[in-house]
Amino acid sequence: MNFSSMSADRMQYLRDNAIRDILSAAARPGMISLAGGVPAPESFPMDVLGLLFDQALSAFGPRALQYDRTEGFAPLCQALSAHLAHCGVHAPPSGVIITSGAQGALDALGKTLITPGDTVAVESPTYLGALQAFSPYRPRFEELPMDDQGLDPEALDALLRARRVKFIYLCPTFQNPTGRTLSLERRKRVAQIIQSRGVLLIEDDPYRDLRYSGEPVHTIHSMAPDHVAYVGTLSKVFAPAFRIGYCVAPGPVQRWLVKAKQGVDLCSGTLGQALAALYIADGHLDRHLPHIVALYRARLHAMLEALQQHMPRGSQWSRPQGGMFVWVRGPAGFDAAAAYAEALKSNVAYVPGRYFFANTPQPETMRLNFTAHDPETVARGVQVLAGIIKTRVDRRHAPAHEDIHKPLLHRI
Amino acid sequence: MNFSSMSADRMQYLRDNAIRDILSAAARPGMISLAGGVPAPESFPMDVLGLLFDQALSAFGPRALQYDRTEGFAPLCQALSAHLAHCGVHAPPSGVIITSGAQGALDALGKTLITPGDTVAVESPTYLGALQAFSPYRPRFEELPMDDQGLDPEALDALLRARRVKFIYLCPTFQNPTGRTLSLERRKRVAQIIQSRGVLLIEDDPYRDLRYSGEPVHTIHSMAPDHVAYVGTLSKVFAPAFRIGYCVAPGPVQRWLVKAKQGVDLCSGTLGQALAALYIADGHLDRHLPHIVALYRARLHAMLEALQQHMPRGSQWSRPQGGMFVWVRGPAGFDAAAAYAEALKSNVAYVPGRYFFANTPQPETMRLNFTAHDPETVARGVQVLAGIIKTRVDRRHAPAHEDIHKPLLHRI
Repeated sequence: MNFSSMSADRMQYLRDNAIRDILSAAARPGMISLAGGVPAPESFPMDVLGLLFDQALSAFGPRALQYDRTEGFAPLCQALSAHLAHCGVHAPPSGVIITSGAQGALDALGKTLITPGDTVAVESPTYLGALQAFSPYRPRFEELPMDDQGLDPEALDALLRARRVKFIYLCPTFQNPTGRTLSLERRKRVAQIIQSRGVLLIEDDPYRDLRYSGEPVHTIHSMAPDHVAYVGTLSKVFAPAFRIGYCVAPGPVQRWLVKAKQGVDLCSGTLGQALAALYIADGHLDRHLPHIVALYRARLHAMLEALQQHMPRGSQWSRPQGGMFVWVRGPAGFDAAAAYAEALKSNVAYVPGRYFFANTPQPETMRLNFTAHDPETVARGVQVLAGIIKTRVDRRHAPAHEDIHKPLLHRI
Repeated sequence: MNFSSMSADRMQYLRDNAIRDILSAAARPGMISLAGGVPAPESFPMDVLGLLFDQALSAFGPRALQYDRTEGFAPLCQALSAHLAHCGVHAPPSGVIITSGAQGALDALGKTLITPGDTVAVESPTYLGALQAFSPYRPRFEELPMDDQGLDPEALDALLRARRVKFIYLCPTFQNPTGRTLSLERRKRVAQIIQSRGVLLIEDDPYRDLRYSGEPVHTIHSMAPDHVAYVGTLSKVFAPAFRIGYCVAPGPVQRWLVKAKQGVDLCSGTLGQALAALYIADGHLDRHLPHIVALYRARLHAMLEALQQHMPRGSQWSRPQGGMFVWVRGPAGFDAAAAYAEALKSNVAYVPGRYFFANTPQPETMRLNFTAHDPETVARGVQVLAGIIKTRVDRRHAPAHEDIHKPLLHRI
């Protein structure tokens, strides 16, 4: 059969997932992987799982094994409604939609909002998974510049003045990939802008609860609930295996999401939702969270210390107060993709920053994850990586060497 | 904010899920629901769940709680590969893709194959969920006529001669909604047609294992594996709560599915996949299946008996050898949608057949589910329904009455 002409036109707009190959190389035994973005296995509440399982079956019986509402398992919507109120996201249980991972919310938002050719504004850099969720629906991406305080609200305002934007996608707290947090001041300005310009904002907030220092910052949703679709997940504070994301959105958007979800998966996994409902409602989440925070805090500290100690002059990096990532910019002329093969040979993996840009990659950047290894291993990984960067940058200043290595530099 | 112009163009092509309202009315206490399409709670393997849970955690540890491969949890792909071989679907473990319910496979197939305007051929009637999965990608549907032996292969051949078709979607075994099974003879002819015309067929096979009489019929996949994307599910023989579907497809289609799935949900629920792997590999499925079959066989028998005994002259119905549904055609002039309110008042629910047609509804048809109640209740439901049909048809033959009732007849 001739498959060459068979795929849908939209397939050419799907982002190639080069990062999957990177992650699979990073999973090799003996590798210090700073590449992943997954929770540490030690963060899972293994000790309460058996209890939750028994309780779920006794509380809900066969209902925990059956199809359930597309909107989400009612006891979980209830538990999340109460939990989110503490974070300043106010919604009745009927206002919380459960999705199959936060990814499921992003796909459904893309599907229900994007007509091909619509403009979607994203941070530069932004979350790769959001680009993958939106791309098949064929938007045009506009990139919003960022600094250490997050995106520049005036650039957003200028964009909205210049052209019609379907929605803005932000990850304002401990952003993936930069770890940066949008300041309170800027959030207020962003809220004001989207209200005055009448535009929808998707606030993707997967790392909210993973704060290791500083004070919580109000969500943009709390400042402009009628203009924000707020997306969260239990993957980082419970377990990814249950694929539980959620979305609190203005009424019409919520109804569109449910309609789209019906065609995509009918409903999310019921047993997982039942376990999650009990995990939250019975206080396990509140009791367990400090353990996760303490675990990751030490790892972030180790990474920042090691960066300070080993990175060559001319490097810069973010100093996150939470989340899972540090964003590193190598010295001028460094190419993180070109250096990748050499790093792998030295048993250190990371993700070159280029994958996180909608339009214009910055080749000298990279994303480092600090949650996968103990502090000593994280520090050793950074030291090895810093050594590679240093050698490569030094080489650039010795022209004879550079010529020799050029083919290698461009192999990836 | 002005939401009226905000939704994507494709939203107008999403099918309104009128059936959701029907199912929610059907869930009222005291209702005899012949409307649903969900497994009976008594069919769930409640007694082995605790064992599976303990074994999954001890065999896989934290891996059962982590993100996993987009393609599916390797031990489940392995178990399904072996299980499917017994059903004549031959694929190595790497050829089995796990999706979030069979619905997830249908969505991904629609997304990766349908360019707006492409023709998709479906049976008349066909599965509502497939129409919902494909519609947002904006195909044109062509309906293939059916009789008691399933679709007419020569009509398929004529269509393929007349126009370019992107793919054919069939549910050839115990079809939802008709319960009909495509005969072996016709399967061979369909396989021959798709091979000679070089067209892809989606074989949706959720009810395969629910056979109450007769002999298994070979899958179309076994006759033309290079031209068939075979879709299955564990929702009917394990539990829907785990949202586990699977797909065996030609190489390029399989790669497209994985790429699309990455943007939709990253991976399916890992713990559910781990439980399912053990459920199949340790022989629980083979041991439990006869209980499900015996449970449903008695219910189907009760429904067919009651139809024979009570349905008014001029009615017809399918006589399935398995699955979950009987398809009923009322006497000439009967309108199943118009009768629905009256049935609800008498505490019987069903689904009017009109929702299962891509283009041209047949108003006198309805789908009856027989798996939700014990045999006596199923029979009582059919008796009440038959009484309503009879009264309405009699009324039509008394013109004075018909005029009086016309507004009521057309209220739904």
